[in-house]
Amino acid sequence: MASNNPARGKEERLWGGRFDSGKVHECLEKINKSIDIDQRLHKQDIEASVAYANGLRDAGILTKDETELIISGLEQESTFELIESDEDIHTAVERRLRRLVGPAAGKLHTGRSRNDQVATDTKLWLSDACKPLADNLVHLIKRMAERAEQEVDVLMPGYTHLQKAQPVRWSQWILSHAWALDADRLRLTQVAERTMSQCPLGSGALAGITHNSMHSVADRDFVAEFTFWCALTGVHLSRLAEDLLLHCSIGFVQMGPGLSTGSSLMPHKSNPDGVELVRAKGATLTGMCTSMLALLKGLPSTYNKDLQLDKSILFQAYDDLNLALELTFAVIDTLRVNSKKCVDELEPSMLATDLAYYLVHKGVPFREAHHKVGEVVKLAEKKGIEISGVTLKELQEICVEFDENVQKVWSFESSVEQYQAYGGTSKASVTKQINAIKQI
Amino acid sequence: MASNNPARGKEERLWGGRFDSGKVHECLEKINKSIDIDQRLHKQDIEASVAYANGLRDAGILTKDETELIISGLEQESTFELIESDEDIHTAVERRLRRLVGPAAGKLHTGRSRNDQVATDTKLWLSDACKPLADNLVHLIKRMAERAEQEVDVLMPGYTHLQKAQPVRWSQWILSHAWALDADRLRLTQVAERTMSQCPLGSGALAGITHNSMHSVADRDFVAEFTFWCALTGVHLSRLAEDLLLHCSIGFVQMGPGLSTGSSLMPHKSNPDGVELVRAKGATLTGMCTSMLALLKGLPSTYNKDLQLDKSILFQAYDDLNLALELTFAVIDTLRVNSKKCVDELEPSMLATDLAYYLVHKGVPFREAHHKVGEVVKLAEKKGIEISGVTLKELQEICVEFDENVQKVWSFESSVEQYQAYGGTSKASVTKQINAIKQI
Amino acid sequence: MASNNPARGKEERLWGGRFDSGKVHECLEKINKSIDIDQRLHKQDIEASVAYANGLRDAGILTKDETELIISGLEQESTFELIESDEDIHTAVERRLRRLVGPAAGKLHTGRSRNDQVATDTKLWLSDACKPLADNLVHLIKRMAERAEQEVDVLMPGYTHLQKAQPVRWSQWILSHAWALDADRLRLTQVAERTMSQCPLGSGALAGITHNSMHSVADRDFVAEFTFWCALTGVHLSRLAEDLLLHCSIGFVQMGPGLSTGSSLMPHKSNPDGVELVRAKGATLTGMCTSMLALLKGLPSTYNKDLQLDKSILFQAYDDLNLALELTFAVIDTLRVNSKKCVDELEPSMLATDLAYYLVHKGVPFREAHHKVGEVVKLAEKKGIEISGVTLKELQEICVEFDENVQKVWSFESSVEQYQAYGGTSKASVTKQINAIKQI
Amino acid sequence: MASNNPARGKEERLWGGRFDSGKVHECLEKINKSIDIDQRLHKQDIEASVAYANGLRDAGILTKDETELIISGLEQESTFELIESDEDIHTAVERRLRRLVGPAAGKLHTGRSRNDQVATDTKLWLSDACKPLADNLVHLIKRMAERAEQEVDVLMPGYTHLQKAQPVRWSQWILSHAWALDADRLRLTQVAERTMSQCPLGSGALAGITHNSMHSVADRDFVAEFTFWCALTGVHLSRLAEDLLLHCSIGFVQMGPGLSTGSSLMPHKSNPDGVELVRAKGATLTGMCTSMLALLKGLPSTYNKDLQLDKSILFQAYDDLNLALELTFAVIDTLRVNSKKCVDELEPSMLATDLAYYLVHKGVPFREAHHKVGEVVKLAEKKGIEISGVTLKELQEICVEFDENVQKVWSFESSVEQYQAYGGTSKASVTKQINAIKQI
Repeated sequence: MASNNPARGKEERLWGGRFDSGKVHECLEKINKSIDIDQRLHKQDIEASVAYANGLRDAGILTKDETELIISGLEQESTFELIESDEDIHTAVERRLRRLVGPAAGKLHTGRSRNDQVATDTKLWLSDACKPLADNLVHLIKRMAERAEQEVDVLMPGYTHLQKAQPVRWSQWILSHAWALDADRLRLTQVAERTMSQCPLGSGALAGITHNSMHSVADRDFVAEFTFWCALTGVHLSRLAEDLLLHCSIGFVQMGPGLSTGSSLMPHKSNPDGVELVRAKGATLTGMCTSMLALLKGLPSTYNKDLQLDKSILFQAYDDLNLALELTFAVIDTLRVNSKKCVDELEPSMLATDLAYYLVHKGVPFREAHHKVGEVVKLAEKKGIEISGVTLKELQEICVEFDENVQKVWSFESSVEQYQAYGGTSKASVTKQINAIKQI
Repeated sequence: MASNNPARGKEERLWGGRFDSGKVHECLEKINKSIDIDQRLHKQDIEASVAYANGLRDAGILTKDETELIISGLEQESTFELIESDEDIHTAVERRLRRLVGPAAGKLHTGRSRNDQVATDTKLWLSDACKPLADNLVHLIKRMAERAEQEVDVLMPGYTHLQKAQPVRWSQWILSHAWALDADRLRLTQVAERTMSQCPLGSGALAGITHNSMHSVADRDFVAEFTFWCALTGVHLSRLAEDLLLHCSIGFVQMGPGLSTGSSLMPHKSNPDGVELVRAKGATLTGMCTSMLALLKGLPSTYNKDLQLDKSILFQAYDDLNLALELTFAVIDTLRVNSKKCVDELEPSMLATDLAYYLVHKGVPFREAHHKVGEVVKLAEKKGIEISGVTLKELQEICVEFDENVQKVWSFESSVEQYQAYGGTSKASVTKQINAIKQI
Repeated sequence: MASNNPARGKEERLWGGRFDSGKVHECLEKINKSIDIDQRLHKQDIEASVAYANGLRDAGILTKDETELIISGLEQESTFELIESDEDIHTAVERRLRRLVGPAAGKLHTGRSRNDQVATDTKLWLSDACKPLADNLVHLIKRMAERAEQEVDVLMPGYTHLQKAQPVRWSQWILSHAWALDADRLRLTQVAERTMSQCPLGSGALAGITHNSMHSVADRDFVAEFTFWCALTGVHLSRLAEDLLLHCSIGFVQMGPGLSTGSSLMPHKSNPDGVELVRAKGATLTGMCTSMLALLKGLPSTYNKDLQLDKSILFQAYDDLNLALELTFAVIDTLRVNSKKCVDELEPSMLATDLAYYLVHKGVPFREAHHKVGEVVKLAEKKGIEISGVTLKELQEICVEFDENVQKVWSFESSVEQYQAYGGTSKASVTKQINAIKQI
Repeated sequence: MASNNPARGKEERLWGGRFDSGKVHECLEKINKSIDIDQRLHKQDIEASVAYANGLRDAGILTKDETELIISGLEQESTFELIESDEDIHTAVERRLRRLVGPAAGKLHTGRSRNDQVATDTKLWLSDACKPLADNLVHLIKRMAERAEQEVDVLMPGYTHLQKAQPVRWSQWILSHAWALDADRLRLTQVAERTMSQCPLGSGALAGITHNSMHSVADRDFVAEFTFWCALTGVHLSRLAEDLLLHCSIGFVQMGPGLSTGSSLMPHKSNPDGVELVRAKGATLTGMCTSMLALLKGLPSTYNKDLQLDKSILFQAYDDLNLALELTFAVIDTLRVNSKKCVDELEPSMLATDLAYYLVHKGVPFREAHHKVGEVVKLAEKKGIEISGVTLKELQEICVEFDENVQKVWSFESSVEQYQAYGGTSKASVTKQINAIKQI
């Protein structure tokens, strides 16, 4: 348990005046210090401070000369170094400014508090962060569309409930994930826009110069929204990852060079570790979203120190999602599709729905057709043969509407080509999807 | 543990053909049956079926007569009754239709599966549900603005860190919560729009007639987004609730008639139970958001039965949030503000920031002014007096810039009035906020 | 939004005295009423009341006659009916008692509050609920061991990273899940014991007659612990479910009769829906654990109405877990193992580790042996052959230690039999595990 | 997005043999590398390796000399340095061993995989970590008891629903939190015991030498359990934190020296930041528990790389909880109790329950007494006086059983002293609690 060692003094603090010794208890210093995390806001803290200096000049609080002095100090490119006693990034920036420009630095904090500074900086940071994230998303989605184009002739089993359902194009499968990510892209735009729609700087703790000063200083919706966004996008990547792992296991695809690792025990293993970690990040990002909501739940309004933990959640969510996007890109970029294995796994029973449609076209109501084909499936199972091996005679015993042209049903290619509408599995439909994605 | 009792037969099922007996194990029946939950989709299932019948007619699958027959059956107003063997709402609707219009009913299911039906129905339901929810939100926000207008002259302590910070108008406080809810209102619009931007009906399990058939049938983003929306809005209500509970405890406000309950043990108690339950729902809604994300995490693409659990989460989140909104409205609607207690709790030390601004106006850099005032606070504490009781002489010993007009600082009213910018605490600023809210 | 309809009067309430009208606002009534949930505590509320009556008699508060009268009233078997105005189960029980035995009923509440009643009742309920749950767990674990015994000769591929790793017995696989559940069984015992280690009845809101009256009345650790227990056990079942779904997909196993459902669209489908729902419940139970923790987070000590929501979480978690256990039992009970398919999926490369051990026995350090066998694997891949098809000459070019008896490596049976230690894959080891489970 | 820079080579890897180039893609390297996290297992990896070397000797795989050589290498105290290419701690330890003792190092990995190494190391780490954690808990609980002893004569209002309920001793309040933590202490013992009850080392990926090799290598129950334990304990600390923040706000207590911070804007502020951060950690720990459960949900059995993320959750949970415990200790250790303010906040209405008991002792059934006192409360409110100011005549109009000795009710001291049973608020009862805690 922590000893009572008196901690560092108050000289460099932004708040020491009323405290007797200004010494902060070691334990408080340890739990309270945020510089390890919020130094990531360095660039934004300077940006916001420059804007604020200009604002103070317009309000007549700073002279033109003071403003220029302060801004030149803020923007000085000299290596910025943190020192042991820096409590947070705002303290560090103001301390350095004081060293560079003297007492004038002390005017910069007029009418602003660290509470609105940190809210502003974090919004600026997030706004900056959304751009590369959006780029990485687009990059990945477009690469998926390219892969769809490249492999458009590969047929494979479509699954529902992990059971073989109907034949599909491999491209339809990969595009199904691209569309999920495209929805994420659109949502990200809205999150980014909303983040910058209100700027809390100067709210002066709780009575200030913006929208509603008490609200803006403690509003962390943008962090909660973004964290949820990361979680949902992470969950989409985890679903893609699960599919990839299953398809690797079956042999539909193989990881590209450098994207598997081996086992320290079993010499033959080649494991798609990276993809598993993407799946896992869907879970940890979910936990971060939970953390953020639980943090805010029941919190009194205005600023409470609890809010300080928002940044470790935010940065972690950003880093994890970005890493997951990059790994997924590398995997999709270099994935080897084993078209032979894909086709080999198709089975005639996957055309049972087409067989029902065949009867529908002969005038049998779908529900009855479904039932009749169910009997065909049962018969084939009983005989231990494929559904396509049931004789015409047997078929007709089940339903008189069957005739010789039933043979045309037994084509996987025709099956996927029958879905010509937008969103369907035909080559034309898939190509339309690809073109739509090229436009984003 | 469940016995092996054979469960109900296959006559009414939509899928019995290939199964030997069609008997479903009692345990599977129990865990699988969704009718208790999804009967809430009754209206939407019929709506979507009517639209689908028209689609099938356009596609030449239904004749004009069949279409009319089916639609008349679907729309028949006779009491709709569920029977024991109805597995889900789709089965129930189709069963009843068959009873009403005969075998033609069996044609309605051509090219659609329950998987895309349920996704469509749920989207329609959510779209319908967003409207009253938005109305309730607006209702509450506007009532908050009315209360702000009514109590605009009440001053009270503003808190940060649960410590008295600066004087504010009571109206500024309630409006700070109104703005949080207004952001929720805007977000809800986007959630509602996105929900209806894609319609999965007819995706035919996974190769169909929409956007990307494999994606649309298993996309539950709209449920995840809405659940998060409920959680965040619930968290906002929980923060308001926490404030209300604290303010009740201090005596700033009192619950209106019928909005407290007593204790079965302590005869004097009057407890704001409802508000506590609103705080609690911020937590349970957070858990529902977690459930939904964890449900989707790592799920293979296309339809998996796991998705069936989305509806109990969705409906529960909707009901809980709506209840919380209604209770909050009733509370705000009838809340009694004790303006005397509000003012009594103001303390001169809350004007310390103004005292620092006073020095800033005399040319002292803010940081130095802050430090000097800190010393004033320390002196007052040492002497056991209010900060306003420190003599001018003592003040001048701390900082020579103090002169007699320092007395003007000691007015709570002037303090709140100095923040004239939009979002500030002055009466004019608060009135602007109120007017802005009246326009929504 | 709710109207202001005055709600029901105070006659039957336990707390009306100090309230003017006693009318509860409709919205408060709606959100506050718990009888729909807590009526499940009916039996426990009576049990605890009987015990409490005896306690009051011992304390001299009730006479012997009054005690007998009250207890006879409480235990009266006549159908217990709830009425519209019953706020909660405690109110209902006391109301009925008053009807049966008159004013003496009013003495029963001396020194107890609903706060400690509900904590006590819930503990009793949970204690009762743990028993059938433990039985169901044991039932399932033992059935798994029986299945392990039955299929002990079936070899199948063991997977890591969803990639084929080493051959194992099917029984080793199912026992791996049995042991996970056995750990749950042991944990449940501790949860159950701890639940009943403190009894809060009579804490009299917050100053009472137990351990620490302020603590015991607001302690919901037992609910949090149990909910986590359900979540972890649910997660174990979800991992088993995932395996079962994969094994169904590959064809290692097939659901027993009545444990699959069909598709309304695709006549050939046979979907293991129930197992998917078990997987899903791992997610919703996780969300419930989140709800419970978030509910308690930051809650002031002693009783707050937020705690009322604990019961809907508790009952839901119990019901969901129990349902998942029952379905899993039915599935394991009737599962068909396709031993031929299991063996067909074994591949010689899965013996690569054994090949490395072969070299180790010749004195090659494992790390070098691993590397050499890696080269053998690479050669086989290059030649498009199985690892067992690499000629002795080729092997010796890679490592001189290979000689003819390398052929002995190529036996899956020998491979699994080499792990003779407890916990290993040999028949003897597996049998030991089975015997250990039979003893629980 | 990441470029295709070929990453580091295979020389130092534990698994390179079968891979053509052994080059790992930069993105995979980045997401896969765990050394930044798992270097914390350094000590445990060596411990386990020493034990394993002895095991290999007993099994005849290592000679006595080799064993000694390996162990001396493992235990060499020379500074252990990580190098850039170390993938994980196991690789690093084996690499260094090879450098120190040559090829014999390569024998150490016989029959073990990194999968069981990491499971073993993590168990050992957790087992080690539980000790200081338990010590810190005990330290805190005992300090709470000392504070209870010290302040045993301080009376304060007990609250329920944040409304004044009954007078209690300050000591009863702090002990209520001590008991919650004591339950955590007992639970931690069980978690620690269970963690070490099974040792997975040597499970050889999935067919090995322990309990059930397939189970043990992928069992992360101990991490999930511990994370939940941290979350629940963190939630307890957050409830204590909430109370402390409220009590600070009212003025019942004041932070000790060095345990508040100031505001950069408001010179008078003294904020209990550290306690707020403890409250917040209740939320982030809840999120970590969610992460861990969501990670495991639906994961196939045996080892999957997803499990690698367990350690960042585990270490973070441990660090956060420990920090919260330390800060809480410092706060409790130095807290100043303002006994005058505590007493000043007591109100006669808090004796309403005692007034009801008074009537009970006169033979009035509690329910009726409760109702009568409710009327007294109502009358006092109407007259704007304290309940103790209601005249005897007025009291008797409400209930004839009142007589002069009713005056005895109006003593807060007598009120708390009436609860003499263990767990009650009397001085004797509180002292018994303190003595019980001294024994732990």
